[in-house]
Amino acid sequence: MSDAADVVEHRPLIIAGTGSAGLTAAIYAARSNNDPLVFEGDEPGGQLTLTSEVENFPGFPEGINGAEFINNAKEQAKRFGAEVKNGIVASVDDSQRPFRVEMANGDVYTADAVIAASGASARTLGIPGEDELMGYGLSTCATCDGAFFRGEDMLVVGGGDAAMEEASFLTKFADTVYLVHRREEFRAEDYWIDRVQEHVDEGNIEIMRNTEVTELHGTREDGVESVTLVSHPEGHPTDKLDDPETEERDFPVGAVFFAIGHTPNTDYLADTGVELDDEGYIKTTGGDGGGQTRTAVPGLFGAGDVVDYHYQQAVTAAGMGCKAAIDADDYLEEQKRAEAKAGETAAADD
Amino acid sequence: MSDAADVVEHRPLIIAGTGSAGLTAAIYAARSNNDPLVFEGDEPGGQLTLTSEVENFPGFPEGINGAEFINNAKEQAKRFGAEVKNGIVASVDDSQRPFRVEMANGDVYTADAVIAASGASARTLGIPGEDELMGYGLSTCATCDGAFFRGEDMLVVGGGDAAMEEASFLTKFADTVYLVHRREEFRAEDYWIDRVQEHVDEGNIEIMRNTEVTELHGTREDGVESVTLVSHPEGHPTDKLDDPETEERDFPVGAVFFAIGHTPNTDYLADTGVELDDEGYIKTTGGDGGGQTRTAVPGLFGAGDVVDYHYQQAVTAAGMGCKAAIDADDYLEEQKRAEAKAGETAAADD
Repeated sequence: MSDAADVVEHRPLIIAGTGSAGLTAAIYAARSNNDPLVFEGDEPGGQLTLTSEVENFPGFPEGINGAEFINNAKEQAKRFGAEVKNGIVASVDDSQRPFRVEMANGDVYTADAVIAASGASARTLGIPGEDELMGYGLSTCATCDGAFFRGEDMLVVGGGDAAMEEASFLTKFADTVYLVHRREEFRAEDYWIDRVQEHVDEGNIEIMRNTEVTELHGTREDGVESVTLVSHPEGHPTDKLDDPETEERDFPVGAVFFAIGHTPNTDYLADTGVELDDEGYIKTTGGDGGGQTRTAVPGLFGAGDVVDYHYQQAVTAAGMGCKAAIDADDYLEEQKRAEAKAGETAAADD
Repeated sequence: MSDAADVVEHRPLIIAGTGSAGLTAAIYAARSNNDPLVFEGDEPGGQLTLTSEVENFPGFPEGINGAEFINNAKEQAKRFGAEVKNGIVASVDDSQRPFRVEMANGDVYTADAVIAASGASARTLGIPGEDELMGYGLSTCATCDGAFFRGEDMLVVGGGDAAMEEASFLTKFADTVYLVHRREEFRAEDYWIDRVQEHVDEGNIEIMRNTEVTELHGTREDGVESVTLVSHPEGHPTDKLDDPETEERDFPVGAVFFAIGHTPNTDYLADTGVELDDEGYIKTTGGDGGGQTRTAVPGLFGAGDVVDYHYQQAVTAAGMGCKAAIDADDYLEEQKRAEAKAGETAAADD
């Protein structure tokens, strides 16, 4: 297990994730001479690369393209000495120090400290047809896939910012965009609710409240052809399938986009002492003062959407990434001082 | 006191401060249709406008000028409908709703919610000569005033990032920069310690450890002429003035820069229920989930360096500003719902 021979490289600090949190951590860690190695994971750049324009990150009066922002931050981190590599962290062994970081391809790295900034991935509904049609008319990223379905009717599932943004964006391509939400109320920013309302007024978006998708129909050859919808005037129809007021119907659409939230990427931490909440988000120390990004494992820090189940903004993730790098630096400096002291004591004992 | 006649204007949200936190809050609040009015305070733009280049804010691979960043964020906030005004908030009356926000010039505004993002101001030593010479050879901002003292010997007081940055920056103008720190160890980022060391190696900076300034000598006509320095091999010499190992000497310099930290700007909250710590920083709820920026007063939120006594970075302040705007929006929506409900009940009673 701890055979040093198979270790590719040792680093003071390994950062998992190259979203807003991971790259901000990398900038700060590189400037603190902690020689960070940053792994991109299976969604390089994180959520921001799946969005078109980032309009609410401060400093960009005209907005900035998500992928461009990520690229900028990556260049910035490299400029100060961070190394960014392809690679998916499969597991972290925290039973020894340095940490052993095992990659999906079998490579092993060791690190004195680790920052988990691995973000969260798009959630799916788990309904029939989903596995078969994902990537064939079903998508979790309108920005990535919207243009493939020009002129079709499209359906977006969700009620938050992402759903509003995706529905608005898809009006560029779609004949009509149907926005399906299981409740009456949207939890999106007013900004987005207003934008969607404008599209509704113009006839580009149609909102279906208190409605859920229960099945996707189609084939990989022909893509999505229709969905099964259920509706109930009081919302959450799939909880009320036996209710006489629940209505079911088949509804023809050419593409379906899920925008129903995210699941934190914490599988690789399962065997560590890191505490997770019921949904898998990392619990950190929080509070005021230093060490806010500490997890239950000393030397292992958490930042960004893998921790934050509430705000989930690019700028809040960036702020947390900065904090994690500062906390990790404090930890590494403490370790160095402790080792120097142990060395002195050992020398005095000779 | 609560005479509506003298109220200039009512707003859903007033934000005190136009630094990184205040402007990020303004961007988010404007996008949430909370029509924010933002007061610049007596240091418009906050700490960032006093720095030359911001290199660690993600998204700017070549760095960005601090004033330019602030200007960008201000334009961005205005683009979504925020109004930014000159004005210093003198006090907030939280004994009634809406809040009464009194300005230094006597104007009164009312607001349903307030975000305190008023930052922190440069600290001084409180030594003889300070009041007389501030602005006449003594400064708390190298970027602002360094160029006025070309060719002189300059002295920087402090041991953190700001002191290192100011000392490095001043080498452009100074004959020699003397960096005076009361302890042996610096608490600055390694990046800055390395930069300073390069200047030491090149003979541009001389470090004086375990040393403090106890008096400034000079006149407003001729500026600073010398300082009194005390040193003790174990540091903190002013605590050990009677110790025979403490040495005092007069030291000629042409300019002095204080870079010894900041005091939070919370005087205007003194009569509110907002809880402050011993140094005057606002205590917020923190933790995970929503409402992290809540203070002890419902409807009054805190963000940025006026809360954060530890990390104090532009990007952490921005992250907190975003959170405060989201928390304020949740609060305002709750208020609206509660009022609508009360209205229904009242109507039903008719």
